[in-house]
Amino acid sequence: MLTRRRSHRDSLIWATAPTVRRHGRGAASTQPSPIARTEPPSEAMPVREAHPRHVHRVSSPAGNGRSQAQLHPLTDKAANHRLQAYETAVKSSFDRILPLLRELAGLQREKGFVGKAQALAEQTLGFRLPDHLLADAWIKGLDLPRLHAACLFETYCRMADGFFAHDPLKGHDTRAFNTFLQGCGFHLMDVTPCADGRLAHAISYVLRLPFGAVRRRSSAGALFDVEDTVSKWVEVEHARYRAGTPNTADAPTRYLKTVIYHFSSRHPAHEGCAAHGSDDTAAARAGLERLQAFRQAVENGFCCGASVALLLIGLDTDTDALRIHVPDAGGHMDLQSGLDTRDIYRQTLSMTPEAARGHILEQVRRHAPAAPDEGMVKLIAHLVEHNLSQLDYVDRRHGGAYPDQGHAERFMGVGIGFEEIQLRNLTFFAYLHTVEEGAADLDVGCRILGGLNHPHGLPIPVVIRFDYHGQVPGARERAIARCLQVDRAMTERYAPLVRDGLLHRLLVVRDCDTRGGLERVAASTDPSGQGGH
Amino acid sequence: MLTRRRSHRDSLIWATAPTVRRHGRGAASTQPSPIARTEPPSEAMPVREAHPRHVHRVSSPAGNGRSQAQLHPLTDKAANHRLQAYETAVKSSFDRILPLLRELAGLQREKGFVGKAQALAEQTLGFRLPDHLLADAWIKGLDLPRLHAACLFETYCRMADGFFAHDPLKGHDTRAFNTFLQGCGFHLMDVTPCADGRLAHAISYVLRLPFGAVRRRSSAGALFDVEDTVSKWVEVEHARYRAGTPNTADAPTRYLKTVIYHFSSRHPAHEGCAAHGSDDTAAARAGLERLQAFRQAVENGFCCGASVALLLIGLDTDTDALRIHVPDAGGHMDLQSGLDTRDIYRQTLSMTPEAARGHILEQVRRHAPAAPDEGMVKLIAHLVEHNLSQLDYVDRRHGGAYPDQGHAERFMGVGIGFEEIQLRNLTFFAYLHTVEEGAADLDVGCRILGGLNHPHGLPIPVVIRFDYHGQVPGARERAIARCLQVDRAMTERYAPLVRDGLLHRLLVVRDCDTRGGLERVAASTDPSGQGGH
Repeated sequence: MLTRRRSHRDSLIWATAPTVRRHGRGAASTQPSPIARTEPPSEAMPVREAHPRHVHRVSSPAGNGRSQAQLHPLTDKAANHRLQAYETAVKSSFDRILPLLRELAGLQREKGFVGKAQALAEQTLGFRLPDHLLADAWIKGLDLPRLHAACLFETYCRMADGFFAHDPLKGHDTRAFNTFLQGCGFHLMDVTPCADGRLAHAISYVLRLPFGAVRRRSSAGALFDVEDTVSKWVEVEHARYRAGTPNTADAPTRYLKTVIYHFSSRHPAHEGCAAHGSDDTAAARAGLERLQAFRQAVENGFCCGASVALLLIGLDTDTDALRIHVPDAGGHMDLQSGLDTRDIYRQTLSMTPEAARGHILEQVRRHAPAAPDEGMVKLIAHLVEHNLSQLDYVDRRHGGAYPDQGHAERFMGVGIGFEEIQLRNLTFFAYLHTVEEGAADLDVGCRILGGLNHPHGLPIPVVIRFDYHGQVPGARERAIARCLQVDRAMTERYAPLVRDGLLHRLLVVRDCDTRGGLERVAASTDPSGQGGH
Repeated sequence: MLTRRRSHRDSLIWATAPTVRRHGRGAASTQPSPIARTEPPSEAMPVREAHPRHVHRVSSPAGNGRSQAQLHPLTDKAANHRLQAYETAVKSSFDRILPLLRELAGLQREKGFVGKAQALAEQTLGFRLPDHLLADAWIKGLDLPRLHAACLFETYCRMADGFFAHDPLKGHDTRAFNTFLQGCGFHLMDVTPCADGRLAHAISYVLRLPFGAVRRRSSAGALFDVEDTVSKWVEVEHARYRAGTPNTADAPTRYLKTVIYHFSSRHPAHEGCAAHGSDDTAAARAGLERLQAFRQAVENGFCCGASVALLLIGLDTDTDALRIHVPDAGGHMDLQSGLDTRDIYRQTLSMTPEAARGHILEQVRRHAPAAPDEGMVKLIAHLVEHNLSQLDYVDRRHGGAYPDQGHAERFMGVGIGFEEIQLRNLTFFAYLHTVEEGAADLDVGCRILGGLNHPHGLPIPVVIRFDYHGQVPGARERAIARCLQVDRAMTERYAPLVRDGLLHRLLVVRDCDTRGGLERVAASTDPSGQGGH
């Protein structure tokens, strides 16, 4: 049942230069190259994604009402280049799958097809296809949906392995941010964005934080699990007492719980948060209530003045602009008004960096309902400044607003893990331990991915994944057993889709105590796999 | 959907004198009386249970090869009286249901049936029956299976409410044991017995410990969840650091994890642990491996010499005798040999209490593979002494071995909670958060309860229960939602049984931060309930 995957660490799809050809044969070589040698695309020539889905496209000019040339004085150009190179490389690796399959479809009855197909696949995708999906094509025709899923799963695995091996987003450079955070009075930043794929880049892109320093727990509607978060709080406090990490328990710092809800400035009634019926006031209120419930649970359950800090942020998924509900020193936040980073952008565009930073601090203070905590002001100002780079990123790449304002996820991620997913609209998450608990999220995901793929005859690709702590004996075996259990339950729940080959699953586990990659457990695209045909 | 139950705290079924009549009308009054006034049955006249199931009955004389009159010098007679009064009261309250139903079956076409039935029910069971299950009996006949479930659920609720209100087993008198335990070098005793109903009395009867001072986490095959236990360990360590409870973190005490596996001395091949195929060597080995995995997880995952103490105990479910695998100071245990409390009983029966205690200490030391830790020796000697009382209890009540050597549970308990279940063979436990995870245990439970009840046309009664911490905002609502979710999943999984009225469910939640009773959420025996008919 279990097969260890060969290592892909030295053949990273995401490290491929982003300007390679996407159609036709005989084009430029796609030999993988390490990320250090990757040239980011020219800023003047934004690379559009070749993703073949129907998406809302906006014809608006630069969202911030200014010429394409001018960048904000606080924008981190080097980071924008690096982030763009990574995003383009990863997404284009997924986007090369369909053109290749179209090409194979035209060749499938030719003599020597298998050899040609493998040569083309290696050239285009950087890997060989499963032989069993090619061998009988001359008799029964290619099973293109299954082949599509197999290519997508392999592309995903290579992306993930490369991510863990090479840390392309520098997410493990955590020291500076940890020092800064503690200087603001917080020892851990725990963020719950909505599980919507359009927020998957919230930490690494929108907030520009090293993901290794932030606890991310995505959740549908940004409604995090209070009991789970209290457990995490206890765990963190215990580490402070026992090991003095990240600081000692007597340091006057707090655990900071942050919620990121979302809305759509372009299509507010349709492209907001599905869990809250695209009502951003409801989304904000629900987030605030959950935050307050967490604080109350800690204050009621533990002695000695135990408490936590709270932060509520709205994200405009069209532009990546933030609406920050600055809390005052008592922890109160105003749901009606928030600090809008687009306003800040416009107000500070022509200032010197120093003046802009001063203005940001002042605006943050002004937006609190009463006198704010100065550490919180400093942290929020930091996040605002980071977000200005992201506004320029979206502006430069997409003319102010994303072309894919709706869903355009490539696959569903089901289970616990997915630290490597730091890109927007790549993955629809359904964090769960069991299908029974997560059925509602899974149904939403299947509706979204089915809506994107089924009209074209393509399947829903699902990655079932459980991370485990390798230092706990038996944890790996339990993670594998859980993968199989969730796969069984999904296969039951979506039996008609599975039977028709319209829902494929890849099962992987990962030891999150290491920087190693994924371990492949099984897939419905394997010779014995269940997935139609 | 939700109805708050009226309080039953002043009409406790378990407080009923145990000698009330079980058949016929017009017998002695069953007016409830507080436990303080309860007379335990005479020792010379053991009260046999009226449970109408087929069980293995043994014809053996006193199991310890001695006359009925002689008790062990270390036996706590007062405790034996008290425990027997409680057990008899509770079990007889369940055992009064069937005779009443038989009586009602004979009366159902009579004029004035509803009034007569209610009078009989109040007199016999201490509560009125749901009117909707009686009203149409003259037309369509009594739905006896459903009425049986309704009576059982009400009996269970009254038993539970009484337990929490009156603490009949004195399980909250924890101070003396906590002091003793810390004196032995341990700050928490965490016990996992097998979830088999024949071990449900392990803490309060077999080991004679106050249940409020012991963490009990029953699990099928005694295979506890390592990750969950590490979380609990962190929680306990955190409380020691933060609040100094149960003692401060610098006190040189350890967390003691104990596993109780089981076997059957009378029918070793058939009545042992189902999860281990009645192979007690396999059960012991699996328990030891799980204990070692827990210790390794703590040692690997935490710094500063973090570790835990381990203890492995076998329980003979026929006699309640223990086989204790005494660890040495290095934590090693011998699976092949164990200290058998029946041997100790015989060896010490004619000694003075002081001499007997000395002998026990010496035997405990002798059974360790190498020099043992003196605190552990002291604790084990304490448990051995307690168990001698239980050997006398079983001997006096049942002539040395239980008549119900196999399963004879009255209902299934599904979910998280059930602190009030401290009696043998009353409840088959399936501790779970979801049916998806717990399906195997549920299937076993349905086989057992179905095997006991279905041949008689009686349903499987299932109590779905989730405890919550009322100090956590929203926790009650989440517990209720989880009850409903598990009920839905069970209804799906066992659809044919549900349709035929052969599986009934009661849904309850409880705030475990208080000493309050159960809150009734719903039941399939309610007018709108799903459960056949």
